[in-house]
Amino acid sequence: MATGKIVTFGEVIMRLSPPGCNKMRQSHELEFFFGGTEMNVGASLAQLGLPVQHISNVSDDFVGESAIACMKGYGIDTAHINKVNHPLGLYFMETGSGMRASRITYNRLHGAFANITPDMVNWEEVLEGCTLLHWTGISPAISEGAYQTLKQGLQEALKKGITITADPAYRSNLWQYGRSGHEVLAELVGLSTVFIGGVNEINEILGTSFTKDEEGFMAAAKKIMADCPNITKVFDKIRTGITASHQKIFGQLWDGKQLYKTPEIEMTQIVDRIGTGDAYAAGLIYAMQTGMDDVDSLVFANAACAVKHTIHGDVNLATVAEITEVAQGNLDGRLKR
Amino acid sequence: MATGKIVTFGEVIMRLSPPGCNKMRQSHELEFFFGGTEMNVGASLAQLGLPVQHISNVSDDFVGESAIACMKGYGIDTAHINKVNHPLGLYFMETGSGMRASRITYNRLHGAFANITPDMVNWEEVLEGCTLLHWTGISPAISEGAYQTLKQGLQEALKKGITITADPAYRSNLWQYGRSGHEVLAELVGLSTVFIGGVNEINEILGTSFTKDEEGFMAAAKKIMADCPNITKVFDKIRTGITASHQKIFGQLWDGKQLYKTPEIEMTQIVDRIGTGDAYAAGLIYAMQTGMDDVDSLVFANAACAVKHTIHGDVNLATVAEITEVAQGNLDGRLKR
Amino acid sequence: MATGKIVTFGEVIMRLSPPGCNKMRQSHELEFFFGGTEMNVGASLAQLGLPVQHISNVSDDFVGESAIACMKGYGIDTAHINKVNHPLGLYFMETGSGMRASRITYNRLHGAFANITPDMVNWEEVLEGCTLLHWTGISPAISEGAYQTLKQGLQEALKKGITITADPAYRSNLWQYGRSGHEVLAELVGLSTVFIGGVNEINEILGTSFTKDEEGFMAAAKKIMADCPNITKVFDKIRTGITASHQKIFGQLWDGKQLYKTPEIEMTQIVDRIGTGDAYAAGLIYAMQTGMDDVDSLVFANAACAVKHTIHGDVNLATVAEITEVAQGNLDGRLKR
Amino acid sequence: MATGKIVTFGEVIMRLSPPGCNKMRQSHELEFFFGGTEMNVGASLAQLGLPVQHISNVSDDFVGESAIACMKGYGIDTAHINKVNHPLGLYFMETGSGMRASRITYNRLHGAFANITPDMVNWEEVLEGCTLLHWTGISPAISEGAYQTLKQGLQEALKKGITITADPAYRSNLWQYGRSGHEVLAELVGLSTVFIGGVNEINEILGTSFTKDEEGFMAAAKKIMADCPNITKVFDKIRTGITASHQKIFGQLWDGKQLYKTPEIEMTQIVDRIGTGDAYAAGLIYAMQTGMDDVDSLVFANAACAVKHTIHGDVNLATVAEITEVAQGNLDGRLKR
Amino acid sequence: MATGKIVTFGEVIMRLSPPGCNKMRQSHELEFFFGGTEMNVGASLAQLGLPVQHISNVSDDFVGESAIACMKGYGIDTAHINKVNHPLGLYFMETGSGMRASRITYNRLHGAFANITPDMVNWEEVLEGCTLLHWTGISPAISEGAYQTLKQGLQEALKKGITITADPAYRSNLWQYGRSGHEVLAELVGLSTVFIGGVNEINEILGTSFTKDEEGFMAAAKKIMADCPNITKVFDKIRTGITASHQKIFGQLWDGKQLYKTPEIEMTQIVDRIGTGDAYAAGLIYAMQTGMDDVDSLVFANAACAVKHTIHGDVNLATVAEITEVAQGNLDGRLKR
Amino acid sequence: MATGKIVTFGEVIMRLSPPGCNKMRQSHELEFFFGGTEMNVGASLAQLGLPVQHISNVSDDFVGESAIACMKGYGIDTAHINKVNHPLGLYFMETGSGMRASRITYNRLHGAFANITPDMVNWEEVLEGCTLLHWTGISPAISEGAYQTLKQGLQEALKKGITITADPAYRSNLWQYGRSGHEVLAELVGLSTVFIGGVNEINEILGTSFTKDEEGFMAAAKKIMADCPNITKVFDKIRTGITASHQKIFGQLWDGKQLYKTPEIEMTQIVDRIGTGDAYAAGLIYAMQTGMDDVDSLVFANAACAVKHTIHGDVNLATVAEITEVAQGNLDGRLKR
Repeated sequence: MATGKIVTFGEVIMRLSPPGCNKMRQSHELEFFFGGTEMNVGASLAQLGLPVQHISNVSDDFVGESAIACMKGYGIDTAHINKVNHPLGLYFMETGSGMRASRITYNRLHGAFANITPDMVNWEEVLEGCTLLHWTGISPAISEGAYQTLKQGLQEALKKGITITADPAYRSNLWQYGRSGHEVLAELVGLSTVFIGGVNEINEILGTSFTKDEEGFMAAAKKIMADCPNITKVFDKIRTGITASHQKIFGQLWDGKQLYKTPEIEMTQIVDRIGTGDAYAAGLIYAMQTGMDDVDSLVFANAACAVKHTIHGDVNLATVAEITEVAQGNLDGRLKR
Repeated sequence: MATGKIVTFGEVIMRLSPPGCNKMRQSHELEFFFGGTEMNVGASLAQLGLPVQHISNVSDDFVGESAIACMKGYGIDTAHINKVNHPLGLYFMETGSGMRASRITYNRLHGAFANITPDMVNWEEVLEGCTLLHWTGISPAISEGAYQTLKQGLQEALKKGITITADPAYRSNLWQYGRSGHEVLAELVGLSTVFIGGVNEINEILGTSFTKDEEGFMAAAKKIMADCPNITKVFDKIRTGITASHQKIFGQLWDGKQLYKTPEIEMTQIVDRIGTGDAYAAGLIYAMQTGMDDVDSLVFANAACAVKHTIHGDVNLATVAEITEVAQGNLDGRLKR
Repeated sequence: MATGKIVTFGEVIMRLSPPGCNKMRQSHELEFFFGGTEMNVGASLAQLGLPVQHISNVSDDFVGESAIACMKGYGIDTAHINKVNHPLGLYFMETGSGMRASRITYNRLHGAFANITPDMVNWEEVLEGCTLLHWTGISPAISEGAYQTLKQGLQEALKKGITITADPAYRSNLWQYGRSGHEVLAELVGLSTVFIGGVNEINEILGTSFTKDEEGFMAAAKKIMADCPNITKVFDKIRTGITASHQKIFGQLWDGKQLYKTPEIEMTQIVDRIGTGDAYAAGLIYAMQTGMDDVDSLVFANAACAVKHTIHGDVNLATVAEITEVAQGNLDGRLKR
Repeated sequence: MATGKIVTFGEVIMRLSPPGCNKMRQSHELEFFFGGTEMNVGASLAQLGLPVQHISNVSDDFVGESAIACMKGYGIDTAHINKVNHPLGLYFMETGSGMRASRITYNRLHGAFANITPDMVNWEEVLEGCTLLHWTGISPAISEGAYQTLKQGLQEALKKGITITADPAYRSNLWQYGRSGHEVLAELVGLSTVFIGGVNEINEILGTSFTKDEEGFMAAAKKIMADCPNITKVFDKIRTGITASHQKIFGQLWDGKQLYKTPEIEMTQIVDRIGTGDAYAAGLIYAMQTGMDDVDSLVFANAACAVKHTIHGDVNLATVAEITEVAQGNLDGRLKR
Repeated sequence: MATGKIVTFGEVIMRLSPPGCNKMRQSHELEFFFGGTEMNVGASLAQLGLPVQHISNVSDDFVGESAIACMKGYGIDTAHINKVNHPLGLYFMETGSGMRASRITYNRLHGAFANITPDMVNWEEVLEGCTLLHWTGISPAISEGAYQTLKQGLQEALKKGITITADPAYRSNLWQYGRSGHEVLAELVGLSTVFIGGVNEINEILGTSFTKDEEGFMAAAKKIMADCPNITKVFDKIRTGITASHQKIFGQLWDGKQLYKTPEIEMTQIVDRIGTGDAYAAGLIYAMQTGMDDVDSLVFANAACAVKHTIHGDVNLATVAEITEVAQGNLDGRLKR
Repeated sequence: MATGKIVTFGEVIMRLSPPGCNKMRQSHELEFFFGGTEMNVGASLAQLGLPVQHISNVSDDFVGESAIACMKGYGIDTAHINKVNHPLGLYFMETGSGMRASRITYNRLHGAFANITPDMVNWEEVLEGCTLLHWTGISPAISEGAYQTLKQGLQEALKKGITITADPAYRSNLWQYGRSGHEVLAELVGLSTVFIGGVNEINEILGTSFTKDEEGFMAAAKKIMADCPNITKVFDKIRTGITASHQKIFGQLWDGKQLYKTPEIEMTQIVDRIGTGDAYAAGLIYAMQTGMDDVDSLVFANAACAVKHTIHGDVNLATVAEITEVAQGNLDGRLKR
């Protein structure tokens, strides 16, 4: 078992959604969860038993206090969460069903995390004892300050030889503060050592047009490793959607030499689609930090992602035992007394 | 875009059901919705952006006030809703699941709408500026007064050259006030211009026995158009039920010359079965009023019906964009950020 | 219709679970139900209209009072429920979904029922007018007192020629009070007349290793009838699990001469898995007590079991009409107005 | 302890109200309770441990089934509840607060109970073993059939020497079927032996105008006993309202010779005002049937009424111990472990 | 009855609060309401039956759609609500109890309304047929655009001789866009005809230091009428707080010649404190528009304010009858059947 | 600010209660909270910002996991919580109202904490860096193991010169394992340095009969300090109950030389009575650890206790600011924006 701590950096965001698959108009109340893509990864890892510290800003009010209490409840070290005089970012979601898609609308661009600046994070202190740093493409898309803060962290981590996992999803409706998302992401992937993503992400970042088949994936992976020589592995997952409630996923990996693929898992009656990519990343990081080999890590990550679809909220609360069960192919959900 | 208003006439009824698929015995509370087949059509059309006025009676108490507030919230003009000293009609529903059917029990036959009489509706004023009037077979089945009131409206509308859509479903457990449902419906269809229904409805009304296949549908449609010469088109939908939670539908149309059919849409994990026929009628009316041709209207109506199965309550709250997505064949429910 | 009363004996246990398929960590509230395998059978039979008396202990506090009120509500005669100074047994359940299994944790071994002793039940009085006594393998596994109390009841019932249905499931995490479950169950089956169970149960009890196919079932049934000569019939059901939410079942019967099997029923979108075996037993007992033949009884039992999967809570609240519908093969759940 | 059974006769009515003190417009759900003034009395008595049978009609559907299950849960014998093809009566209530009054609107005049007729109740059988029959002024106000049915019961009971408690509240918005409420109530009080009510009720029934002070009460009581010579005692309670949430009550009794009064109890933070008069009647009947003297009975009745104000729903669920505590003047609500 | 429409201008804001008086940390869900001080006034007036149009911006997403549906449900004309690409303003509230205060935290300064600009409102068209325009001190405190937009409206209204009611509360934690609140409010009150407020507001705006007693109020009122000669009347209300749940209020008026005061109303068990000032303003406007004299208007306004304390949410849903009852001094909340 | 950690030792117990002041019979769901008198103190202190470690056993299942997550969320260090194979202790509570008392029924005597033994706690390690250890009379009353474990801790702490706060309430319905509560408590108070309690507790422990007035309190305090010479101060609080919802409290202190008393605080509309004594203890400890003098500590403790009555659940979630406000006499609960 790795004993070093894992550091995650990113927005803590509040999700608000009407119960069930009601439209907002049909409700007088909203369920809420605290999440955020990197915090979801951290929470899942803390749940699985690893030491995790999350770096972020929250609002200096009872909403921010609740967010901190929530993170503490997951077991996350919150000592480096700043309280600032800006509201916590949030989003509303109407959960779809069947052929009706879920809809999300954000309120985050002037929030607590958007106002983070490099002087608010003492990276040297934070990365003390850290063995892995995780980031995603959401953070640098929020604001110049978030971008600069993240970049300093990556540079410091790279210098210290820390593993850096990058999940550089490109979200076009962010990136409103003036920089090109493609360029920034390419720069930051250049400062990372493990790439979590596939053809879509690589095409976005590099402006390439690889095809989405096996050949395309291998070519794209080779290209990103060529352009960003710190990257040593590319972990991807492929989702096929039948309806909002019925989907299939499998994982694939290019380790510089070979392609590996997991069996495909079919998920019917999906409970919650949010945070499933984060569950994949967390599964991967857990597996790598606890010494599994690449193929086992890929299978564990895919299983973690699949199980998350059965769990309400942003964070994967599945236990190691529950994920392992699925990783071993036991999908029949037999009652445990 | 048609600028004329749409008028709907019929009972505003309250639905009361235990949460989830609980039996009533298992609950201490009931969810409630205001609906009623014609009001559902009107509410859906108002949601989609068309001007709608609904004609009805409600109880002169806080239940009736809530019903009016609900209609106003949908955007329906309630200026011609009468408040009377009789309770609002209502029904209880236990929602089924899988192989267990939903069950409904009514309390409407002495209610506010059952006590409507022709002198309560000034049809001439109501139909001012109206381009389409919609009715169903439920209204004339409730009471003599409801029948007479509707008949006057149809006569007036026909005189003014207004499009009249008839959805003349025959419900055998109604019709307790002395008249024959078959005769009344035949008479009222004779005063209408668009027939929404198929072999079942035509056989009920005319006492015929056409078969339920394609040939039977065409023959039945020809027969109703022969007997009721104001009818110019027959729009139908065919439902196949696998379980209470899993069904398939497609639409078909006889326009006097040709048969058209939509692709079949499969619906798994049905959220709410109530009001899906009304969603079909509303989709059809929306399409016709906004200038789509017959085939596109049929496809849009079928999509509206399908999407309604994913929405809780009596009224189709889907937006034009959501219905269009399904009409274009995008059924995978991919998250919209 | 049989006019004799049915007696059930066993723990009344409280189930506590977070709403939906939430984990306990995600909730501030728990739904609760009163159940217990034998009480479930009794409640279902009382619901179906037969006279039922349940024999048990409950706590002498407002929890026990609530349990009694609940049983009375089902129509169970509670005159022989003792109130004792020990807490009511209970269990927590996290309901799974898809590939994630439900998890249960018990708090029952020092509870009200575990403290039952033979002197608390006047079997002679209880069995007055009784035509059928039902027990399961859970009761004798709880405590020495429960075992002794049950054994006295069986002996008395056998003496009186009462039908005794045994559902001798072996639960390995019980049996902590010192006796061997296998031996005790074998002894008590020896005092019974109808065996509800199959190869798994027989292998557990007799230490045999029959295969799970048709041949194995017949061989096992013959063996149990040979070892326990009071047994005249063996009713079994076979479940195939695809996920926690999607399963198939069919029933089979060995009547000493012939094998009968029902068609298999497929259940998608399972609402509640708990108490489905009890629904099978109750269906069987209802059918036998109301004069159906063996094959019809088997079909009715299998249908009762299937319908229970659509009902929330421990007890099958389905009506005779609802079960009969499924027994006749109508599985499409068409709305009943 | 009296061993004879108590019979109550009257409508079983469903109450539907938004949670808390919300207006109906502010809610998507309604809490429901089964009650009805006479059933409330019966339920309370059954809760307190006395044998009770309730005579009524319910709807022959799942709503009526739920009502029966609810009564059984209270311990009421429901063997003489008829199932008929009319909907169960119901009312909606918006619960007030502070200076804002609660509002109620009824839907009962065409319901199951309104359709009761004398041939539906075999009074001779019902009154077998009965020692007390309770009725209120609501039942004869509903319909001719309800009036005639009740009258037959009273005549039969009087013949048998059964104690008959009358709570003849006059509700002016009922009595729509043609008879004069004053005359009917006077006739039925003439068939009763204990009068529960005071100056208001007597003035209404006899058309007198006694004052509401002590003198007036005594004069009124003497007058009703003169006009209705079967009446031997008059039990009254006096309520003083400060706000909807803060009230005071005391009881008074005229036994033909003397006036007795209880201390006044002050109730702040009232939880539920419905059914408090029924709790008073039930307290009185319980006390009389279990052998308390008149003064103790009055005190117990007043305490039962007071405690009901702390209990949600129509029925007084307080235990004998809880009522006794208040009857003894312990009002500080100290925690019981 | 005045027939002219009332126009209100201001932010539509969403309130999010945990159920009951829970802290946010204790909940997984939040109740929500759409409000905003001026919209609350408009909604209350529409409820009371007057024609109201509200002018504002909402977000162009399903949150904004819900807000519009909510306003429509109240009966507000929403034709001049703009949909813009900024999130809807919102605030979180933890409801206090007893001595624990409620706490509010806002997220509004970059929201839809803050981005309003004068070109978005065609005041000439809006004020067509309008007889009263209402504004408060919140709107000009949000942003320069909101201030300029409001100022144009007031100038146009003043020109047209429309009554302008000003409720110029000064909120120090707003006013972050650069202007001095005192100066702006003084300028805008100068464009108004009725002043709703008292010594606190006048001292804030004019920088004076009048005392809070009767003398001080008269002196302050004279001063504001001297400085702002369009003002003809000053309506005030005085609140005395005992705890968060127990308060007293009365109204006072200076009409240029005389002081009037209402009796004080005591409110125990307060349900909701938010929007009570808005209820006062709405009561006042309703009374003035329907022709009551000044003293009756003051009494009605004070009663409206008092009743609002018993209603959950931001908007006073009390009916004319309910307010009139309190205005007439009936405070005992006696049940209305 | 004290930098040493605070250690609390005691059962983590789950509270289950129906919503509002419903009886259990009226509900299908129960709210739950994790508490326990010593854990409540620890949670409150952690909330207030001090470092706290709680020592206990929880069940080795998802219930225990939830309890740990809950404690972590409060900020409690859970590194010394053992997971054992016994169920978590729990209790059911029906919340009273007005004159109706709350009722509690326990299920704890065979639970996880009852099975604690001295070898499960390494006190030397635990007390490293600790400046205060808190215990109550509940723990030694549960089982011999709990008593022995606590005693070892106290001995070790006394040796290390750690402040030991004792809240030795005597609960007669515990103490079922064979020892005399009076003797054990006297022994353990002898190992403590601060006594939290008054005449009731001292009379129970020492078998004395001091009166409850001021004189009695001083005499009793002197007596306990004479018998238990490590005790240097006696902090007490006096509660006067009017109803379950309306009470008064004040604090008093004997410091060996002088008597101090706080003003009395009146609490109307009590939200939750549970854990108010723990809030007092936590307030006291917080004040002492952060350097307040004795009188200020007493005032702060009394304010903390008062504020807790407005907070739902077992734990005082009030902030330092909220308590300070009340300690300064601001009881009017004015809204904080």
